[in-house]
Amino acid sequence: MLKTPTIVLNVKTYTEATGNKALDIAMLMDEISKETGASMAIAVQATDISLCANKVSIPVWAEHIDPIKPGSHTGWTLAEAVKNAGAVGTLINHSEHRLKLADVDICITRAKELDLDHIICSNNVATSKAIAAFSPNFIAVEPPELIGGDISVTTADPDIVSGSVEAVKNVDKKVKVLCGAGVKNGKDVSKAIELGADGVLLASGIVKAKDKELVIRDLAAGL
Amino acid sequence: MLKTPTIVLNVKTYTEATGNKALDIAMLMDEISKETGASMAIAVQATDISLCANKVSIPVWAEHIDPIKPGSHTGWTLAEAVKNAGAVGTLINHSEHRLKLADVDICITRAKELDLDHIICSNNVATSKAIAAFSPNFIAVEPPELIGGDISVTTADPDIVSGSVEAVKNVDKKVKVLCGAGVKNGKDVSKAIELGADGVLLASGIVKAKDKELVIRDLAAGL
Amino acid sequence: MLKTPTIVLNVKTYTEATGNKALDIAMLMDEISKETGASMAIAVQATDISLCANKVSIPVWAEHIDPIKPGSHTGWTLAEAVKNAGAVGTLINHSEHRLKLADVDICITRAKELDLDHIICSNNVATSKAIAAFSPNFIAVEPPELIGGDISVTTADPDIVSGSVEAVKNVDKKVKVLCGAGVKNGKDVSKAIELGADGVLLASGIVKAKDKELVIRDLAAGL
Amino acid sequence: MLKTPTIVLNVKTYTEATGNKALDIAMLMDEISKETGASMAIAVQATDISLCANKVSIPVWAEHIDPIKPGSHTGWTLAEAVKNAGAVGTLINHSEHRLKLADVDICITRAKELDLDHIICSNNVATSKAIAAFSPNFIAVEPPELIGGDISVTTADPDIVSGSVEAVKNVDKKVKVLCGAGVKNGKDVSKAIELGADGVLLASGIVKAKDKELVIRDLAAGL
Repeated sequence: MLKTPTIVLNVKTYTEATGNKALDIAMLMDEISKETGASMAIAVQATDISLCANKVSIPVWAEHIDPIKPGSHTGWTLAEAVKNAGAVGTLINHSEHRLKLADVDICITRAKELDLDHIICSNNVATSKAIAAFSPNFIAVEPPELIGGDISVTTADPDIVSGSVEAVKNVDKKVKVLCGAGVKNGKDVSKAIELGADGVLLASGIVKAKDKELVIRDLAAGL
Repeated sequence: MLKTPTIVLNVKTYTEATGNKALDIAMLMDEISKETGASMAIAVQATDISLCANKVSIPVWAEHIDPIKPGSHTGWTLAEAVKNAGAVGTLINHSEHRLKLADVDICITRAKELDLDHIICSNNVATSKAIAAFSPNFIAVEPPELIGGDISVTTADPDIVSGSVEAVKNVDKKVKVLCGAGVKNGKDVSKAIELGADGVLLASGIVKAKDKELVIRDLAAGL
Repeated sequence: MLKTPTIVLNVKTYTEATGNKALDIAMLMDEISKETGASMAIAVQATDISLCANKVSIPVWAEHIDPIKPGSHTGWTLAEAVKNAGAVGTLINHSEHRLKLADVDICITRAKELDLDHIICSNNVATSKAIAAFSPNFIAVEPPELIGGDISVTTADPDIVSGSVEAVKNVDKKVKVLCGAGVKNGKDVSKAIELGADGVLLASGIVKAKDKELVIRDLAAGL
Repeated sequence: MLKTPTIVLNVKTYTEATGNKALDIAMLMDEISKETGASMAIAVQATDISLCANKVSIPVWAEHIDPIKPGSHTGWTLAEAVKNAGAVGTLINHSEHRLKLADVDICITRAKELDLDHIICSNNVATSKAIAAFSPNFIAVEPPELIGGDISVTTADPDIVSGSVEAVKNVDKKVKVLCGAGVKNGKDVSKAIELGADGVLLASGIVKAKDKELVIRDLAAGL
C-alpha cells in the first residue's frame, strides 16, 4: 500500500499528459521522489499504463476499473488488464466517472482480490462515511464544485476534510483519507495534513503547470 | 482503411486474450495474414494496444472510444490516446458498450478527425440504416441474441445481413458492411460474403478456440 | 396524429408546471386552441397526465417512455401506463433524456405498437437523418446549446432547420419535422414554417412567461 | 413515517398492476389493513399515484425519484411531482433502478426536504451498512439473484437479513430495516421479523398471485 503521507496525481485525459507526455511527468515525479523521499503515485490512462510502469519506480495507477470480471465486456476496463499492464493501484468512483453504489462495492472487492491498491473518491462527508463501510485502502474527498478551480479545498472548505477524516475513522480506523480539488502547492499539502488527511489527490495543479518540476518540488516539500 | 474482404477479431476482456495472451493471438494472425494475404485486424483492450502495435504488422484497433475531447474525463477512453498507443482503428457502439445516438455521432466525428478507421456496431436492419446516415467506414450488424452463441448469424438470420447491406448501401454506397455473432469457421465467412457483406467481426470463435491457429486459417480460407 | 402545423409544449419538471399548474396551462392552451383552431399539444410529467387528460380536449402527451415492456422495471416509464393514464403521444430522446441508439429504435416500435403519437428529438442534421431511418411520426431538431436560451433556433441556426427538413424528407417523406430551442413568439413560429418545419416544440418560452395567455396567443397567430 | 412492522408492495410495471388494476390492489390492501390493523403501503407507477392516492387510506408511494430539483429535466421523476400527486413516500435505488452513490445521497436529502417517507434498497450487508451512513428512514435489503424467485430471502439467505439489521443498527439505531426477494406468505413475514427486520418489501408475490386477497390476508397474519 502507498506509503503516507502521499501525493497522488491523476492525469485524466489531458493532452499535456497523454502518451509520452504522461511518461515525462512520471519520470519527473520519480526523480523528485527518489531525491526527496516523498511518497508519490501517478494515475494514467489505460493506454499509457505499460509505457509508464516499465520506466519508473513510483507506483503507476489506473484512473478507473469497471465492475466486471473477465469475459464479454467489450471496451470496458478490466482490473486484471490494468494490473497486468503494470498498474499497482486504481482510482474508483472519480467525480468524472461515478459508479452506482452496488458497483462501488464490486470494484473495491475486485481491487482487493487482485491486491490492487485503491482510492475511492467521495464528494462530501456523508458519502465519505458511506464508502468507509466497504473498508477500502483510501478515500479521497473532493467537492466537485472545487475540482479544477483555483482555490484549494483546504482553504475553501476545510470542514469537509476534517469532517471526512472524523466520519471515516469512526467507521473504520484503518481507512486512510486524502483530499483533493484545487490543490496547487506545498502550503495546500501541509494544510491537508494538518486537517488530518494522509495526503492529496490532484490533477490540473501539476498537469497544467508551466513549470511542472517547480510545482512537484513545492508539493513534495509540503509533506 | 482496412482492405476488404476482412476478418476483424474483438478480444473483449477475455482472460484468454489479456496482456501477453492478446499479443500471442495478434502474432498468430499476423503470421497467417502474411502467409495467405488475408486482410485481418485485431481489436484489443486499451491496456494492450501498445504491446500489440509494437510487435505486429496487422492493424491493431481499440475496442471502444468515448465521446470526449482531451480534458477532464478521468478513466474514459480518449481517441487521441488509443491512436497514440498505436491503434489505427476502433470499434464504436458494440452491443456490450452501447452509446446514446448523439454520442455515436460524436465518436464517428472524432474517429474521422483523427483518421482512425472505425466499425460501428448495429443490432438490426433499422439501426444499420440509421447509422449509415453518419457515413462511417464500416457498419457491423450483430443480433445481440446470437452473440457468443453456436449458430452463425449467416445461418440463423441471413436476412439481417442482406437486409443491412441493402439498407446501408441505399443510404451511402461507400459504407462497408460486416456481420457478426456466432461466426466460427470459413464456411460462415464465405456465406457472409455471399450475402453481400465485406467481412466478419468475431470474438469467442477465435478467443475460446482450443486450436486458435486452425480456426484462424480456416476463417482466412473463407475469404 | 397531431394536426400540422402545430405547437407542442414540453413543461419539463418546472415548478411553474407541476400538478395543478400544469393543468392551468393545459386549460389555457385548450381554450385558445378551440377559439383559434390552432393545433396544440402539451407534454407533462407522468404524475400529471391523468389530471390533465381528464380535463382538456387538446392532446396530452408524456415527456418520455422507457425502452421496456410490462414487467419488472421498478420506477421506469411504461408506454402502456402513460397511454392508460390518458396520454395520446410521447416525446422520445429529448436532449435532457437521451437514449442509446438501439433504445430509440425500441421506443419508436413501442409507440407504434400502442398507437401513441411520437416526436423524436435530434440535435443536428446528421442525427435527424439517422432517426428518419426509423420512420417516426415526428422529428424535432433542437441544438442543445440553444435550449432554454433567448435566441430562437430559427434565427440563430436556420440551416439546421432547413437542413434537417431536407435530410429527413430524403429518407422518408412522411416524417414530419418540428424545430425547437429558444422559440418564444409568433414570429419564431412563422419563420419555422417558412424554413419547411411542420411546427415547433418549446418549453420555457411558455412556462417561464409572465403572461402565458399573451404568449400562447402570439405563438398561435404565427401558425 | 410508516408504522412498523409493515408490508410494502412494489407493483413495478406489471400489466397486472397498471392503471385501474393498481387501484384494485390498493383498495384490497386498504380494506384488509382497516380490518386487521396491519400496516401496509403500496408503491405504484408515477402515472398511477393520483388515481390510487385519491381513493385509499393506506400510504401510496412512488417507485422512484430522480436526483433532481425542479427545472429542465424532461421526463425524469421529480420528488415534488410525486408528492403533489399524493405520494407520501418513495422507493430509492431499487435493484432495477440503481443510482450512483452521490445520487443516493441527493435522493435521500430530497425526500427528507419534502418530508417524503423513503426506503433505500440495498443488495448485501456491505451496501446496507454504507446506506445507513445517510440515516434514511428505511433500508430494504434484497439479494438481486432472489428477486422474483420462489424462495424467500428469509429461507435462502437469512444471514443477509440479520447481518444487515446488525450492521445498520451499529451505524444508526433509528434506521429501520426491511427485507425482500421471494417473499410470498405469512411465514416469510414472521421469519423476517424474527430475524430482526421491521417488515418486508415484495412485488410478484402479490401482483402475480391468482388469489390476491388470500395472499394479502396471509401476509398480514404474519406481522
